[in-house]
Amino acid sequence: MRIVGELINASRKKIREEIREKNYDAIAKVALDQHENGADFIDVNAGIFVGKETDYMKWLIQTVQENVDAPCCIDTPDPAVIEEAVKVHKGIPMINSISLEKGRYENIIPVIKGTDFKIIALCMSDEGMPYTKEERLKIADRLVNNLVKNGIKLENIFVDPLVQPIGSGDHLGREFLDSVEAIHAKYEGIHTICGLSNISFGIPKRGFANRAFMVMAITRGLDSAIMNPLDNKMMANVLAAEMLLGKDQFCEKYMNAYREGKLDF
Amino acid sequence: MRIVGELINASRKKIREEIREKNYDAIAKVALDQHENGADFIDVNAGIFVGKETDYMKWLIQTVQENVDAPCCIDTPDPAVIEEAVKVHKGIPMINSISLEKGRYENIIPVIKGTDFKIIALCMSDEGMPYTKEERLKIADRLVNNLVKNGIKLENIFVDPLVQPIGSGDHLGREFLDSVEAIHAKYEGIHTICGLSNISFGIPKRGFANRAFMVMAITRGLDSAIMNPLDNKMMANVLAAEMLLGKDQFCEKYMNAYREGKLDF
Repeated sequence: MRIVGELINASRKKIREEIREKNYDAIAKVALDQHENGADFIDVNAGIFVGKETDYMKWLIQTVQENVDAPCCIDTPDPAVIEEAVKVHKGIPMINSISLEKGRYENIIPVIKGTDFKIIALCMSDEGMPYTKEERLKIADRLVNNLVKNGIKLENIFVDPLVQPIGSGDHLGREFLDSVEAIHAKYEGIHTICGLSNISFGIPKRGFANRAFMVMAITRGLDSAIMNPLDNKMMANVLAAEMLLGKDQFCEKYMNAYREGKLDF
Repeated sequence: MRIVGELINASRKKIREEIREKNYDAIAKVALDQHENGADFIDVNAGIFVGKETDYMKWLIQTVQENVDAPCCIDTPDPAVIEEAVKVHKGIPMINSISLEKGRYENIIPVIKGTDFKIIALCMSDEGMPYTKEERLKIADRLVNNLVKNGIKLENIFVDPLVQPIGSGDHLGREFLDSVEAIHAKYEGIHTICGLSNISFGIPKRGFANRAFMVMAITRGLDSAIMNPLDNKMMANVLAAEMLLGKDQFCEKYMNAYREGKLDF
């Protein structure tokens, strides 16, 4: 499982203030905590600061990478911000994200064309959110083909089929899960990714439902997630699911996590 | 999800004593508790009482059915016990179980031939336990075809692919899950069932791993389980998985369970 640590996001009130004040130690700590608890990429988002996003984004990337030996996930729909951000990034960044929405697609392609960047490809188009597996695959097909034509390798593409609340329609969980499986079946070597907490919008015991849905998504092939690696219950479920699928040789990670006593099994 | 309540089993020490003493109230209570918490069938097993199994089995069935309006799951490999047990059973029983093992298969077929009994078909043969999906499907094919030839309807067959400890081989969880999906794909209308606690034999936090594996198995199509319906954490996971798969209209069962406050979400 590739884990993108989601905590450094200016839409979170506390983080927003720390970014605004350029509180180096606070951001460094959140980056370090996430990395030590399993984040392979550190998401950085300063989208709320209109007109100052580029400045804050560059500062975030530098602050994270001065403290953590991991790539960032540059989280913005703005190609101008991406263009400046990748200049200060060490190693290969992840870009969060491109979609089929006209303005977004056409402007981001020139920035990522021919690079080795990891690209999150959102199943979203100008026709709006997809609801069925078929709608998702139609968008994914166009996105993946266009990205490959522009020199992005399949193994650098992370398709996000978009999770929708189960409370909005009983079938919406299944459509998502079917999409994950179908995308892996169609494109060998591609990745799928999502932030899945939307699934539980409006229902009680959201964390519980989110954890069950994570286990289900991993079972159907999800291999990456944008999540909080400090959520010890969620991480325990991720480890258990991977072990039970045979992706944890000799159950070693699961056993070590148990012995270390950090996770909440 | 069809739930077979597993608690009335003479291999459990307390139950063994209650059966030995024909403690009517105690057995009635265990049956009632299981039924009220979601058991569709009440498993009854007196296998430990050599020479007296038939007598105890009949008493168990009568005791359960005088208190609970549910069928029993007659849990014995002995055709003579089954033959007597079904005579006292009201309604349509489940038989646990037939397999391809020569003595067992040949002797049980005459007792169930042409009936409407629900039949648990264990993927076990004289060649021993199956380890791969292919081995399981080979046994399942022969069992299912033979049962159908003997007048058992597909929708009354519950194939148990047999869960093996993940600690014995990293691939054993996946082989089981793949088998569940393959069996449903091959035989429309058939059921799959299992007791899944074997998966966690030898690893820590067994209950946690069992719950994750249950969610995974339901995700791949498992539609029945032999389990403890009084396990509030396990039941919460079953409800969540079914809701997230769209099998709980308007999330009603999940919401009701939350409101009743009985389950451990």
